[in-house]
Amino acid sequence: MGNKTVVGHSEQRWDAIAKVKGQAKFTADFPFKNMLYEKILRSTIAHGYVESYDTSEALKVPGVVKIFLPEDLPQNKYSTAGHPWTLVQEKRDIQDRTILTRHVRVYGDDIAAVVAKSELAAIQALAKIKVTYKKYPVYWTPKEAMAVGAQRIHEERDNVIADTCVGFGDVTKSMAEADYVIKEQLSTSVQQHVHMENQIAVAYQDADQRWTCVSSTQIPHICRRIIAQAVGVSWSKIRVKKPFIGGGFGNKQDAVVEPLVVALSMACNGQPIQLALTREESIGNTRTRHAIDYNFSIGVKKDGTITAIDCEVFSNQGGYASHGHAIGGKGGTFINAIYKMDSLRYAAKTVYTNIATAGAMRAYGMPQVVFALESVIDDAAEKIGMDPIEFRYKNRRPNGFYNEMSHVKQINFKVGECLEKGRKEFAWDKKLAASQAYKTGTKRLGVGIAAFSFGTAVYPFGLEVSGARLILMPDGCFKLMLGSTEIGQGADTAMSQMAAETIGVPFKNIIRDSFTDTDIDPYDTGAYASRQSYVTGFAVKEAAEKMKTKILARAAQTYDVRAEYIDIINGEIIYIPNGERLATLEEVAMASYFDMKDGKTITADSAVNIHQTTYASGCTLAEVEVDIETGRVKLLSIMNVHDSGKIINPLLATGQVEGGMAMGIGYGLSEGLRYDKTGRPLNNNLLDYKLPTTMDLPELKHTFVETDDPLGPFGNKSLGENPTVSPAPAIRNAVKNAIGIGINNLPLSPENVYEHLQVLKEGGQHV
Amino acid sequence: MGNKTVVGHSEQRWDAIAKVKGQAKFTADFPFKNMLYEKILRSTIAHGYVESYDTSEALKVPGVVKIFLPEDLPQNKYSTAGHPWTLVQEKRDIQDRTILTRHVRVYGDDIAAVVAKSELAAIQALAKIKVTYKKYPVYWTPKEAMAVGAQRIHEERDNVIADTCVGFGDVTKSMAEADYVIKEQLSTSVQQHVHMENQIAVAYQDADQRWTCVSSTQIPHICRRIIAQAVGVSWSKIRVKKPFIGGGFGNKQDAVVEPLVVALSMACNGQPIQLALTREESIGNTRTRHAIDYNFSIGVKKDGTITAIDCEVFSNQGGYASHGHAIGGKGGTFINAIYKMDSLRYAAKTVYTNIATAGAMRAYGMPQVVFALESVIDDAAEKIGMDPIEFRYKNRRPNGFYNEMSHVKQINFKVGECLEKGRKEFAWDKKLAASQAYKTGTKRLGVGIAAFSFGTAVYPFGLEVSGARLILMPDGCFKLMLGSTEIGQGADTAMSQMAAETIGVPFKNIIRDSFTDTDIDPYDTGAYASRQSYVTGFAVKEAAEKMKTKILARAAQTYDVRAEYIDIINGEIIYIPNGERLATLEEVAMASYFDMKDGKTITADSAVNIHQTTYASGCTLAEVEVDIETGRVKLLSIMNVHDSGKIINPLLATGQVEGGMAMGIGYGLSEGLRYDKTGRPLNNNLLDYKLPTTMDLPELKHTFVETDDPLGPFGNKSLGENPTVSPAPAIRNAVKNAIGIGINNLPLSPENVYEHLQVLKEGGQHV
Repeated sequence: MGNKTVVGHSEQRWDAIAKVKGQAKFTADFPFKNMLYEKILRSTIAHGYVESYDTSEALKVPGVVKIFLPEDLPQNKYSTAGHPWTLVQEKRDIQDRTILTRHVRVYGDDIAAVVAKSELAAIQALAKIKVTYKKYPVYWTPKEAMAVGAQRIHEERDNVIADTCVGFGDVTKSMAEADYVIKEQLSTSVQQHVHMENQIAVAYQDADQRWTCVSSTQIPHICRRIIAQAVGVSWSKIRVKKPFIGGGFGNKQDAVVEPLVVALSMACNGQPIQLALTREESIGNTRTRHAIDYNFSIGVKKDGTITAIDCEVFSNQGGYASHGHAIGGKGGTFINAIYKMDSLRYAAKTVYTNIATAGAMRAYGMPQVVFALESVIDDAAEKIGMDPIEFRYKNRRPNGFYNEMSHVKQINFKVGECLEKGRKEFAWDKKLAASQAYKTGTKRLGVGIAAFSFGTAVYPFGLEVSGARLILMPDGCFKLMLGSTEIGQGADTAMSQMAAETIGVPFKNIIRDSFTDTDIDPYDTGAYASRQSYVTGFAVKEAAEKMKTKILARAAQTYDVRAEYIDIINGEIIYIPNGERLATLEEVAMASYFDMKDGKTITADSAVNIHQTTYASGCTLAEVEVDIETGRVKLLSIMNVHDSGKIINPLLATGQVEGGMAMGIGYGLSEGLRYDKTGRPLNNNLLDYKLPTTMDLPELKHTFVETDDPLGPFGNKSLGENPTVSPAPAIRNAVKNAIGIGINNLPLSPENVYEHLQVLKEGGQHV
Repeated sequence: MGNKTVVGHSEQRWDAIAKVKGQAKFTADFPFKNMLYEKILRSTIAHGYVESYDTSEALKVPGVVKIFLPEDLPQNKYSTAGHPWTLVQEKRDIQDRTILTRHVRVYGDDIAAVVAKSELAAIQALAKIKVTYKKYPVYWTPKEAMAVGAQRIHEERDNVIADTCVGFGDVTKSMAEADYVIKEQLSTSVQQHVHMENQIAVAYQDADQRWTCVSSTQIPHICRRIIAQAVGVSWSKIRVKKPFIGGGFGNKQDAVVEPLVVALSMACNGQPIQLALTREESIGNTRTRHAIDYNFSIGVKKDGTITAIDCEVFSNQGGYASHGHAIGGKGGTFINAIYKMDSLRYAAKTVYTNIATAGAMRAYGMPQVVFALESVIDDAAEKIGMDPIEFRYKNRRPNGFYNEMSHVKQINFKVGECLEKGRKEFAWDKKLAASQAYKTGTKRLGVGIAAFSFGTAVYPFGLEVSGARLILMPDGCFKLMLGSTEIGQGADTAMSQMAAETIGVPFKNIIRDSFTDTDIDPYDTGAYASRQSYVTGFAVKEAAEKMKTKILARAAQTYDVRAEYIDIINGEIIYIPNGERLATLEEVAMASYFDMKDGKTITADSAVNIHQTTYASGCTLAEVEVDIETGRVKLLSIMNVHDSGKIINPLLATGQVEGGMAMGIGYGLSEGLRYDKTGRPLNNNLLDYKLPTTMDLPELKHTFVETDDPLGPFGNKSLGENPTVSPAPAIRNAVKNAIGIGINNLPLSPENVYEHLQVLKEGGQHV
């Protein structure tokens, strides 16, 4: 692990005290004088066209300033997806929406906006707007939207927005060489992020006549570009400021509210306007995890060799393209990353439907494909009578495997070590044996496992750039400026550790404020793809190395020694030959500010463009008790094992893993948006949307196979999203172990499990 | 003037529209949640000691949170003076005050503070605090405070805080060689800055547990240091933010309110606390222009040669040292800068008294010494019967003069050209001749002139450092970050012109926001000493040159041409050999952000330490009508002529000159703080303090002797303060020309002139 003194330690996150004392300011905590409030009028149909609006009664509500129809605001087509911009036109996100729309594609579509002097007045006015619709047929699933004769949801584009097929080998031939071919259909549910802070943004015209949007966004710099495209101004005319954020999980990687609120401020003389979504809107009308249907086949030999995997994917995009095919299309690479096989076919379609638009969500498509893959893998192991861990271990990709699908050499890929460590620390064999005594009776016990591979950042598929800036303060502290986004995960604390480590000062010497401002902070694409501690880590390292070099050069000159004979250790300038202190950092800093002769403040900038990546991996082991009378699955114990390279801050890593596991458990057991027949979300609230709370969860055990990844800036690789990936299939496999039924649709709610149990009880054959 | 395309043009100031629309945010425009309000309890004696406080009734006022006595807050000694810090202990400002004090040295001293939930409650509480004092003798003038047996105003220090004598030659011998020796006593008044926005600051604890002070300060970075020293924390624990400012004129070059408000927030759990001074406090209890008494002797020969100048200076410091001797002590250098003489003695004392503390004010000591010098010079010319312009012209320092007192070679010193241009454009000879017809009767006419020299920035006396940062935006615009301070003078507009000029883009391509933040903006000492367009100008130039080099290097690589064959002209990359456009700047910028292969955002930083200066000069010509029955002086016409190098923005320069002239006219004719016998200011309000308004002023004519100063970053030198210097003595000399009396005390109010006229009428001899 090297001689790291700050990286690798559980430094207290710099904002911990502020968050306890209530000093951390979120978007809603910034008061503005003369602020107006905005509410969105949402469609009450899922597909159709607004033929008329009657706003006459609404305009009479005291406090209402103005009501905006789609044609009152800019009509530019744009995409809300928070991808880095690309100079290659074909690689750009599909620009398929306008700020407001008469053409309704989802239930709750943005069809008008009310601006009022109070939120209450805006809400009252909403209720008084009368709308008449022309209704179109509603498509709930890719299958329906792909059917012959189905109406186009977007006139200019087929409902299948992308159709790709990747892989290698001859799948038909390899399948024929298998002893068994297991074919299954699997489907995942519509999960919602449920970040603590709902979407909120405030826009106003600034003194320079440009437009500022204060927003709870994961992607300030990208958000600037999206707003500019939506409202039709040059990009530098927009400034995005990001205060503290109460979570995002990918939902705030879409610019869902920002273009609208800026357009409205533009239409209201630049007055500050706030748009704060309610919890109901945030759950029902923002982005979701794509529901994906899989037709999955796997060929295995009796000795446990996988000959082929054939996977058909139907990704339910909902009404607008958002992140689109980037999610459903990526799975093949990671199937190939983890298991050996002779042939692979991964054929994916992403299809518009009329359910809520799906977008980025923590782990970005991996929970879906890993649920499918690890279910089928588990069933294959069962088929040939091999221990599921042994089967995975046998077929795992070796360290150093070159993944020809992504052109990534997996040089530090430790899934085998994770499986071994998990088997041991979870006491898999003991638990498996113990469960045998509970295969009859009301309460059945079972254990299950699921493994996964995971990328780090988006290279080579997308641009990976970042920047950092350090300023030496007069007292020897350093201000660290970043464009990367602290969204509650602790990124700024980790980056501060990296800066301190590299310069050679204690953690407390690094000053951060977690307020991102696109005008002045270094360019960075933001918080997604588990990229920041990796890509921004390189930027921090480069800036810190430059800073150190500059300080040492100055000290060398001042104290007349050779720069290579001195070092910064624990905040002091040390003369290496005798180990003695030459000066304090503060002395050098003060002279850099105030020496009449040559005082010049020291700053250091970096801008990096990263052309490498490294794959992480891991697994989940779960033990469940299934009540076969009620279908209730009780999670008795669970453990995640992560191969994520060097752990920058064990305490923060624990937070990431525990949070991710909880999200994965919810995905496995209880979460899923449901709709009524009109397309209205039935459970877009925290009473009915079943998110596990601390009370619902067992101890979230986890461990690391910690390595010093040679490709990581500090030996690290992705971790933020990874823990979310494998809990659901591990639970599914544990339930199968308990009751003998492999349930292939999520979530494994009591209702779902109960239905499957009925099939069994009625003597039917479970497919 | 070179081929400048942006510098030298009257670009509209970037914040003009915002100021018209009310979008420019000043400190009071930032609302804070749960803000508390603070009011200062001010002493009602001028010298003494608070023996007891009774706060019992005050604490009963609803809304009062807490009342702080001196011993409740930090007791560190500090100086409010906004000088750059120096590593040389002896050069530091005298640290003679604490945040609150029981030892009262001026009327209105800060003896306690009330914090309440509303400003009204705080004010009500103030009135209910009972205080008992032990009274000490009050000293109004240096003479009184210097008298044998006078009590020390600060126990640890003599009342004479500095006593210096500079010069050259043998004054006694040179005086003996003169045909005439003219001896005069002169005195100046206590002028107040009267900036539109009173002092205001808000302090709160930020999320990182450091302390932020939002303040209307001219010196954000220095203010950070002063606050830290006053409250006793490491400097980086303080962050100062400066929004738009409604003027400062030097008064906001003292940290008068910031240490107190930060100390109070610290004592109130970090809650936001606002301290906003009233107009009465701002005029009566902040800083003033030093009242200085002069004993001035000049020796002249009949041919107009000046043999010697001997000047004794008594600078009235008031209760605290603040900027201290830097003001009264500096005059000798500038006497030497403008006129030839064989010998000079400039003996200056700065003395504590019990009047309001004097500090920095626009032109920093020059209006006083130039009033004295130019009065005596004028009287000497009269004595030998020489035209006053001719006398000055004859004795002027030539271009290229090496000033041994400041070690500055005055290589671009054009006072002679100013005198010539003023004589011509003001129609001096015609006006002088015309006035001869009005030397009797009730209304007397007269013309007068006064000249001056003026430094640029504080080198070689103090540190001159600055920095700038430029960020290339994706659309080819540039964000300009500065630590220098826009205080209404238009600095940011001028700097933007400099950046645009250097890079080769239109003015509109430069983005500024005039919000200074000590955490992230480049280090710069702030707005004073007419230094910014000079020192910060160098920083902007260096950053812009670096930016241009980086852009051209990138473009050269992208388009495969040699960097020296391309240039940026009007925002486009031009291939010089054929003059054709190679690319737009936006194309290069977009690639720097988004090129997968080598996209890296382009930023450029500078930090400069300037070891040079250049002297400016100028003169004022005035024509007055004096009503000898009322003593009223009517200013008929006035003209300033400035030798300030290249004029960066003629429109903004006009604003500076007109404002400065108005301030100089007020100094000459009407302004002066008056006190009653207890030391209470009599006219600390805008009704009684006679500030000239637009209605009181004639047309403020001005012209420039424009040169391209080789020592200026863009050919420019000081201008911001200069216009204030010479109107008062020009008016004094015009009045003398009209009525035959040289009035040596300011202001020339009707009361003052009337008194002098009585002496004449009563047949007395005017001294």
